Amino acid sequence: MTHTDSTPPDDQGSVATALELVADEVDAAVSAVLDADAGDDDASGQLDAFADLVDDAERVFVHGAGRSGLALRMTAMRLMHLGLEVHVVGEVTTPAIADGDVLLTASGSGTTSGIVAAARTAVDAGARVAAITTAADSPLADLAEAVLVVPAADKQDRSGTASAQYAGGLFEQTVVLLGDAVFHALWKRSGADADELWPRHANLE
Amino acid sequence: MTHTDSTPPDDQGSVATALELVADEVDAAVSAVLDADAGDDDASGQLDAFADLVDDAERVFVHGAGRSGLALRMTAMRLMHLGLEVHVVGEVTTPAIADGDVLLTASGSGTTSGIVAAARTAVDAGARVAAITTAADSPLADLAEAVLVVPAADKQDRSGTASAQYAGGLFEQTVVLLGDAVFHALWKRSGADADELWPRHANLE
Amino acid sequence: MTHTDSTPPDDQGSVATALELVADEVDAAVSAVLDADAGDDDASGQLDAFADLVDDAERVFVHGAGRSGLALRMTAMRLMHLGLEVHVVGEVTTPAIADGDVLLTASGSGTTSGIVAAARTAVDAGARVAAITTAADSPLADLAEAVLVVPAADKQDRSGTASAQYAGGLFEQTVVLLGDAVFHALWKRSGADADELWPRHANLE
Amino acid sequence: MTHTDSTPPDDQGSVATALELVADEVDAAVSAVLDADAGDDDASGQLDAFADLVDDAERVFVHGAGRSGLALRMTAMRLMHLGLEVHVVGEVTTPAIADGDVLLTASGSGTTSGIVAAARTAVDAGARVAAITTAADSPLADLAEAVLVVPAADKQDRSGTASAQYAGGLFEQTVVLLGDAVFHALWKRSGADADELWPRHANLE
Repeated sequence: MTHTDSTPPDDQGSVATALELVADEVDAAVSAVLDADAGDDDASGQLDAFADLVDDAERVFVHGAGRSGLALRMTAMRLMHLGLEVHVVGEVTTPAIADGDVLLTASGSGTTSGIVAAARTAVDAGARVAAITTAADSPLADLAEAVLVVPAADKQDRSGTASAQYAGGLFEQTVVLLGDAVFHALWKRSGADADELWPRHANLE
Repeated sequence: MTHTDSTPPDDQGSVATALELVADEVDAAVSAVLDADAGDDDASGQLDAFADLVDDAERVFVHGAGRSGLALRMTAMRLMHLGLEVHVVGEVTTPAIADGDVLLTASGSGTTSGIVAAARTAVDAGARVAAITTAADSPLADLAEAVLVVPAADKQDRSGTASAQYAGGLFEQTVVLLGDAVFHALWKRSGADADELWPRHANLE
Repeated sequence: MTHTDSTPPDDQGSVATALELVADEVDAAVSAVLDADAGDDDASGQLDAFADLVDDAERVFVHGAGRSGLALRMTAMRLMHLGLEVHVVGEVTTPAIADGDVLLTASGSGTTSGIVAAARTAVDAGARVAAITTAADSPLADLAEAVLVVPAADKQDRSGTASAQYAGGLFEQTVVLLGDAVFHALWKRSGADADELWPRHANLE
Repeated sequence: MTHTDSTPPDDQGSVATALELVADEVDAAVSAVLDADAGDDDASGQLDAFADLVDDAERVFVHGAGRSGLALRMTAMRLMHLGLEVHVVGEVTTPAIADGDVLLTASGSGTTSGIVAAARTAVDAGARVAAITTAADSPLADLAEAVLVVPAADKQDRSGTASAQYAGGLFEQTVVLLGDAVFHALWKRSGADADELWPRHANLE
């Protein structure tokens, strides 16, 4: 963003200033994810591995707490448009997860108790876990077969060090973009054009 | 209910008095539905016809406004336990309704605009409609292949004539019981015992 | 219900037979609640005590798992119509519970882990708990200041002894009726007529 | 994003390529919003005017269809953390909108029928409307007192001209970032530090 320089540092209550901050932080987080993916360590190639896991699932179950859960619901809707069978954990018609399914989840800290418990249940049931987190060394990451690590503050971290935004804001914004990138790649791999996905959009409301 | 007589008529703020009222009204509404079903007019045999329609569906979509929608969600969860593919209209992963599907819906007045519009869309898409309503001569009933008519006030009727309860309360309570009766009958027809349904209960929360 | 006798005992797949069963079981459960309320033991007067607790709350938070949660949402909507500030636990705009608030909850077994944990948090925060359960001697009942005990099977009990319905069906139906009875009594106490509640109904959908 | 150049143009199924595309498009959309805000036409100063409208509301009601609705729920949760009274349209405890309230809404096309109808109802009730849209000349924008125009494809536009992403993806991503920027600015204006917001986070799940 080239706008940053022209903003006085004390104009903290300006929405324009805030929007530049948000966009700059998202840009940096995405760049770090891309650098890790292109590198030669454990995180290399994780983006495609993550998408492969989702693509190979019998059914995809998404689960996140609070705003992470809302971000994953955005992804869930797109995966349904793609023709996958998708369920949101906590909705009334969501069945039991089973062998062959994938739990797609996100937790900034990787320690959210309900999410970690669900991941353990999923693994015990023979399902596989795909997780987005800030913490590569967390109980959630340990349970997951595919992990995307986002260099952002988790929700409990209110120090302002990793991000000037409140709580897990940057993490949750990045989950939205990662989910849409996974969808976009799977869509392109499918060879379908936009008009082929459209008839799957809900028609009753 | 034999308790009614012992309650002073002016004790309107007593929860016991209110509970007797609610139970007596539900009892009368259910009796009227059963009488109509056992009679020899158009409504005869509608209870089983309604259940047959749901049972024959490729997929079941439930849709209701407000408290009617909550009542139908209770039914939706049970139909999922029975092994049917069920979707709640408005949830993020609900796909488009299509030929072979059934829209299971409830509207006291039979005129709720969003519900009637959805029923029309469903019919246009080749799906069939099962409706619970107080109004046999309503746009919703006209679109439905199976109709259950509950003799209760609709939500707009605040006259107190059909029920002393507020708005559509009696209708909504009856929808809960009708939905569970349809489930119970389908369960018994399936020959499955309770332990066979249990593994379908959500295991991730 | 006078219809029961005319139904052959082996007609288990008939919806009419199922509806009689459901209505008879609800009738018996309500009668037992009324008898306990009118008796001279610990349960005496609990119905009004339960309503008083809800009525005195700064804010009411409702919380239940699965179908119990849906039943309590039906009650929550009515309490909002009555003018109370009501929140559903798990919705995105629900704030933290605090001193002066009431947690209105239901769990057949009284042991549902998420519900018991929430009740403990509520008590620790200075809030009070109103609980509907089948188990007077349960962790949830112990935490609650007002308890309504419904003589019905809890969800885990699939023996068919307490109810011929599946899992917690009878309990959940009774929660719907109890919630509406509490609402009805509070409405009558308020002195408002139906037309005064109507303007509080949601007007944006 | 400096990564774009190194990616072969035919690697469409790569998640890294997709993530760069998403991030680049979001970056461009945000820049365009900032440029318009800093310019000297009608859109000048709209970002702060938008935040002022939300900040001055008695109560904030958020409403959007599908993924736009999920994006606005993310904003709603943050506004609740800030201490505002916030309701999501469609949730069971959401009351009627009234004089002094603000409807915060988003529709790519500005023509989504349910959203436009809600905006009209809100205005008729004396409430004010804050809208995010791609279409400055739309029914929704006409009803709104504060409008943010995002230069992105609306959901119906599947031509790929305004964005290479599917349907309204870019619009919805930008709604997430705009909502968080509005929150961030209001938070900074409030003078509260992060620890003062934290106690408002839901404590019952």
